[in-house]
Amino acid sequence: MKLYTLIFHDMTTITFEPIGIIHTPFLSIDNMPIQPMGAENIIATIELNKQYVEGLKDLDGFSHLTLIYFLHQVDGYQLSVTPFMDSQSHGIFATRSPKRPNAIGISTVKLISINENILTIEEADMLNGTPLLDIKPFFPQFDNRTQVKAGWLDDKWHPNNKNHRSDNRFK
Amino acid sequence: MKLYTLIFHDMTTITFEPIGIIHTPFLSIDNMPIQPMGAENIIATIELNKQYVEGLKDLDGFSHLTLIYFLHQVDGYQLSVTPFMDSQSHGIFATRSPKRPNAIGISTVKLISINENILTIEEADMLNGTPLLDIKPFFPQFDNRTQVKAGWLDDKWHPNNKNHRSDNRFK
Repeated sequence: MKLYTLIFHDMTTITFEPIGIIHTPFLSIDNMPIQPMGAENIIATIELNKQYVEGLKDLDGFSHLTLIYFLHQVDGYQLSVTPFMDSQSHGIFATRSPKRPNAIGISTVKLISINENILTIEEADMLNGTPLLDIKPFFPQFDNRTQVKAGWLDDKWHPNNKNHRSDNRFK
Repeated sequence: MKLYTLIFHDMTTITFEPIGIIHTPFLSIDNMPIQPMGAENIIATIELNKQYVEGLKDLDGFSHLTLIYFLHQVDGYQLSVTPFMDSQSHGIFATRSPKRPNAIGISTVKLISINENILTIEEADMLNGTPLLDIKPFFPQFDNRTQVKAGWLDDKWHPNNKNHRSDNRFK
């Protein structure tokens, strides 16, 4: 298991460690779903480090989890990107493209089952071998939003976008 | 500005840097809103590092942003916690409590305005001085979920929970 150390350059140090690894069918950054909405029926497993199993107590009552993870195959970043759903460029923070200054991804997935340290999930849209940083339970009263305006994404949205797949532009 | 270095202990190294700092009215970990829903009318600012301003292009079309940040005042973690909304303990991953193996927070806030590198936001529920790691545009088609079951949170939910404030149990 890899360890991460987070060093503040004023010499304060925090140690960061992936809490587990996500095993998915996606072996390459291209031809992947671009969001969980495109990953219906995609089953994956989280292999949680066994030392954290106690932290899963009562998680089985939740239908959805938000995963926070490293985009471990993304190299460097771009401040302007042309995302998969558009032919025009936008600022990276106005997109969900992976080539971000800090390569952190979030995905809300369905929880199917928990068996000791193995969580089976559905709608996984991340690469195989992704280092997992956190699991948060999804709670509509905290996480859903209404009366949202979503700029260029509203303009470009079409239900068929669900079927969009990635290419290798952000490799 | 502090820098973070992420070191894989197999000697692969990633450099991690906060993209900015969040300035809020909350100077102490106790007596804070426990989620953005409790932070109505709380105005805060994000001071983005100027080098990233290009990445904000077109973000002003969005009404909501999901912020990813460090819970920089949380020391260590607990696998079992009694969260603010319950008197019984749960596994840390079945709660949104801050004392997590990796002290990463997410909050979806309202975007009020952008002026060069300063973003004014509403519904900020994080401590003053929080190091920001990422800004993602909130998009209902990606981020909202229906038909959710939320275990103990469903059982304990009451609209008055909006007004819950933190204490210092996770200091």
